[in-house]
Amino acid sequence: MSLKAFETLPQGSELELDRVLSNLKKDDAGLIAAIAQQHDTGEVLMLAYMNEASIRETLETGQVCYWSRSRQTYWRKGESSGNRQTLVSMSFDCDGDCILLKVEQKGPACHTNRRNCFFFEAKDNKVIVNSKPMV
Amino acid sequence: MSLKAFETLPQGSELELDRVLSNLKKDDAGLIAAIAQQHDTGEVLMLAYMNEASIRETLETGQVCYWSRSRQTYWRKGESSGNRQTLVSMSFDCDGDCILLKVEQKGPACHTNRRNCFFFEAKDNKVIVNSKPMV
Repeated sequence: MSLKAFETLPQGSELELDRVLSNLKKDDAGLIAAIAQQHDTGEVLMLAYMNEASIRETLETGQVCYWSRSRQTYWRKGESSGNRQTLVSMSFDCDGDCILLKVEQKGPACHTNRRNCFFFEAKDNKVIVNSKPMV
Repeated sequence: MSLKAFETLPQGSELELDRVLSNLKKDDAGLIAAIAQQHDTGEVLMLAYMNEASIRETLETGQVCYWSRSRQTYWRKGESSGNRQTLVSMSFDCDGDCILLKVEQKGPACHTNRRNCFFFEAKDNKVIVNSKPMV
């Protein structure tokens, strides 16, 4: 499975969603990596995983739903914390093995209460904790 | 392995790079997902994979080096095409299973000659090809 057959289509071409979803390159667990990016600032918030059902739910509801690998269940982001991700756009990459979600993130995206998850920054043979939890 | 033990450290804390690298949560092939983002515009360019040696090479040389899962070898981005990625910063996420690379991307990041790989955009039960190759 891949989207290779479609990569030479001219800009503006339309494909059926079902056809694209069935050609995604999922891993052995049926999952595909999904990057969440704050739509207006460009801040990369987190990376998580989706299966086909969570992709469909996200498109239908407009609220981002992942698959939690640690809990082995659907993870409706913010369902318990209130820190929802509202979908602005969803795009698949050339290989069909990654999703880019542009979202409106309410509050922190990270379970540590930081705005984003990428707070361990490599610098000169060290790694610096470069942010703190939101209040 | 995870970076969990470090997530409550105060902002500005320093860790040894070796200690963080040895605690990354790699998959069975020793790989970790890496997001490449254009540092100044925030455009998400692509997702690829790194192993510990390619992380170290990238930090040492300042040129992004991935591990190619399809070719099972080091992939020094742009080595043949000239479309290099120069590293601006590298950060690890809270779970230690994803890397965010802020880069200066020369030319297209995508093998289709598009600037980024995320050109299949879901919209109203269709998927639209939303960009074209750079000239």
